[in-house]
Amino acid sequence: MQKVALVIGAGDATGGAIARRFAREGFATCAVRRSADKLQPLLDEIRAAGGVAHGFGTDARKEEEVVALVEQIETQVGPIEVLVFNIGANVPSSILEETARRYFKVWEMACFSGFLSAREVARRMVPRGRGTILFTGATASMRGGAHFAAFSGAKHALRALAQSMARELGPRGVHVAHVVIDGAIDTAFIRDNFPERYALKSQEGILNPEHIADQYWMLHCQPRDAWTHELDLRPWMEKF
Amino acid sequence: MQKVALVIGAGDATGGAIARRFAREGFATCAVRRSADKLQPLLDEIRAAGGVAHGFGTDARKEEEVVALVEQIETQVGPIEVLVFNIGANVPSSILEETARRYFKVWEMACFSGFLSAREVARRMVPRGRGTILFTGATASMRGGAHFAAFSGAKHALRALAQSMARELGPRGVHVAHVVIDGAIDTAFIRDNFPERYALKSQEGILNPEHIADQYWMLHCQPRDAWTHELDLRPWMEKF
Amino acid sequence: MQKVALVIGAGDATGGAIARRFAREGFATCAVRRSADKLQPLLDEIRAAGGVAHGFGTDARKEEEVVALVEQIETQVGPIEVLVFNIGANVPSSILEETARRYFKVWEMACFSGFLSAREVARRMVPRGRGTILFTGATASMRGGAHFAAFSGAKHALRALAQSMARELGPRGVHVAHVVIDGAIDTAFIRDNFPERYALKSQEGILNPEHIADQYWMLHCQPRDAWTHELDLRPWMEKF
Amino acid sequence: MQKVALVIGAGDATGGAIARRFAREGFATCAVRRSADKLQPLLDEIRAAGGVAHGFGTDARKEEEVVALVEQIETQVGPIEVLVFNIGANVPSSILEETARRYFKVWEMACFSGFLSAREVARRMVPRGRGTILFTGATASMRGGAHFAAFSGAKHALRALAQSMARELGPRGVHVAHVVIDGAIDTAFIRDNFPERYALKSQEGILNPEHIADQYWMLHCQPRDAWTHELDLRPWMEKF
Repeated sequence: MQKVALVIGAGDATGGAIARRFAREGFATCAVRRSADKLQPLLDEIRAAGGVAHGFGTDARKEEEVVALVEQIETQVGPIEVLVFNIGANVPSSILEETARRYFKVWEMACFSGFLSAREVARRMVPRGRGTILFTGATASMRGGAHFAAFSGAKHALRALAQSMARELGPRGVHVAHVVIDGAIDTAFIRDNFPERYALKSQEGILNPEHIADQYWMLHCQPRDAWTHELDLRPWMEKF
Repeated sequence: MQKVALVIGAGDATGGAIARRFAREGFATCAVRRSADKLQPLLDEIRAAGGVAHGFGTDARKEEEVVALVEQIETQVGPIEVLVFNIGANVPSSILEETARRYFKVWEMACFSGFLSAREVARRMVPRGRGTILFTGATASMRGGAHFAAFSGAKHALRALAQSMARELGPRGVHVAHVVIDGAIDTAFIRDNFPERYALKSQEGILNPEHIADQYWMLHCQPRDAWTHELDLRPWMEKF
Repeated sequence: MQKVALVIGAGDATGGAIARRFAREGFATCAVRRSADKLQPLLDEIRAAGGVAHGFGTDARKEEEVVALVEQIETQVGPIEVLVFNIGANVPSSILEETARRYFKVWEMACFSGFLSAREVARRMVPRGRGTILFTGATASMRGGAHFAAFSGAKHALRALAQSMARELGPRGVHVAHVVIDGAIDTAFIRDNFPERYALKSQEGILNPEHIADQYWMLHCQPRDAWTHELDLRPWMEKF
Repeated sequence: MQKVALVIGAGDATGGAIARRFAREGFATCAVRRSADKLQPLLDEIRAAGGVAHGFGTDARKEEEVVALVEQIETQVGPIEVLVFNIGANVPSSILEETARRYFKVWEMACFSGFLSAREVARRMVPRGRGTILFTGATASMRGGAHFAAFSGAKHALRALAQSMARELGPRGVHVAHVVIDGAIDTAFIRDNFPERYALKSQEGILNPEHIADQYWMLHCQPRDAWTHELDLRPWMEKF
């Protein structure tokens, strides 16, 4: 069976680019988002380029769905060699107006799903003594900010998960890394909502998803005597 | 009406000592834990020393209970001048054996309760342009560790909350601080489970809750031109 | 003999306030700056308030001067119980125009002097199994910034010194702490050069040196089961 | 003229591997160490593989030597496209026994040389709006440790330099990055002094210099919309 790259959160520009990248390298790429039908263009694109792609509609916040997903892939597609966890969206709010529901949902999506996915995949990787687990982080992974209580909470927790897993599973052969993306990405969301920001694209002032994907691939390729646990990515002109 | 110090998580040694400390300084101290009846010894102790204490049985993970608690205190006891959030317990586990239920519960208790409590109190403090919100952190607030995915996740998220609130509410007059407790505390739990550790008490090798409480009081007393956002506390002999 | 508080860098507002604070608490305060004659107003002030003060003109960048200073104090005044190292000035410059001479001098003053002072005092404290060593840090201790290569380099190195000493000497009874001052201080320098900043004084938007001094005193008073290694101080309205 | 990669500190295994790596990619590689004659084997090796190599005996702690070196390379070899600063050695000592001379020398070598080299090269790169400057860091760049006051001080200061330069020069087109090497490297020094550690080589438990060099090359290749400022490298089994 072909080695599998599982990309959870393949709905956005970054997740899609990562899925295409691993497919290009010969992985059977399993792309996951909540509604499977939205995955079709990505799957078509990968297949048109000669790659192998499978789409799954899974709510990664539901333990039973994640367990079933991993079981299905391992039995029907192949051993998961790479997991990329790439879900998470910021919904800024003053702390005074933050709702319990939203605070919970941001965490559930950006952190709890990551825990479920990574644990479930780790259970397969550890007995094999190999595998790569990559988490997408953000500036908010590193510092809390005004109106970012929910998102930075979820992202801090995800980073703690990445560190805890790296410290436990590194010595068991599983490479766990955390990528801190610090800047706007070239997405429809930025184009439509932050046109001034988007205009920086002409001078490489926003991140190209393909270049992000290259770094995920690079992390996977690192030999085990020289693993990176955390790296940041930002445009040259980004303030930090 | 008397100024109020609200201590959520007044069940353990630290929370109890903080409640006594603020009572001693003349605050009407509102002590909260899940079951009110277990608060009786603390309330008795405070009252015997001439202080004012009120006990509340509140599940701080439930929004409606937290909202009601704050409303009741503000209308019946007095304006909340200080909030201490002191809930959170570690339940170590290999990531491979961590359950979704436990991962969620650790977060719910150590982080979500903190969000609910701090938001609800901040809504009262901000219009008054004053107040102090103190969060109890731990070593796990700063780094993830093997078998600490759940606890470090919750504690990292709580720290992100503290930072986000400080950055938003500091300029509105509310002092938000995070205390990183790095070492064993003199509690029944340590005495019963880690006797070797506990034996260090004779040479001040574990933290005295009264001394922790002194620091919470100190933070509250800081004039607003010289606020601390984060300090660590550890025994002199503790490795770090 | 009376216990000694040695304040190296007692020339500015902060150092002066710290010297007065420890004198008020009954310490024989030894105030040091490069030219002794400039110390006279501070010594007069402390003595007028009933305190004990000694002034020393010492270039703390010169090993032999620091060695002689500590020897003289220990034999003629008393055992050094507290060392406060408070020297260091920022001279911003584009890295492209930074001179080797200035880069070296900033380090020599803000870091090398600190090493010489702290080492020399530690040699006295360790055999006694007690003592407090406090370093003044800054925002630049935590992050490098454009045009801050020299100052942030020196301050980062001083912080590394504080950490290294705390880890080595804590278990030998010496309390080593680092205070990160993040904001403008009420000094003649700020008044004369940053009048807009200084105008924030009326609403406590700049740090009062007396309040900084209170925190140094607080750190010294911490019992050894609950030592702080690092705390930050900033005005309530300061961005961070 | 050919593009130049300048490797300062090409004396050890890591510096040598980096020099070979850039030579292999077509750079005219300028290898620098204090005594030029020791560079001969490295130069021979690069040339035997078809690469272009120049050796320079330069004391990077001397401003005039660094200025002359950069001038000579720029006029006689080609424009410096990449600078790798790779000098620095740890000499552990209790703070109580640390000498002023050694404390100074460790800083001079690991930090001051880095400042001189990077500033001098940046002065050439900035007008061209391009170039890569890479600093070799260590665990001691991130935290001070007992007996590491000198080394961690120098390494912290070097990291502050890297951050300051990145923040100033990134927006001017120069990519500045800092690589935190956390673990033993496969060198004669480790082989001879830490044989137990060295024995881990058979299971990739120590870093292969060639793999470190690959990462320096990778950093240089990053497109400017996705630059990394800091990454860590450690063997899979290394505790962190």
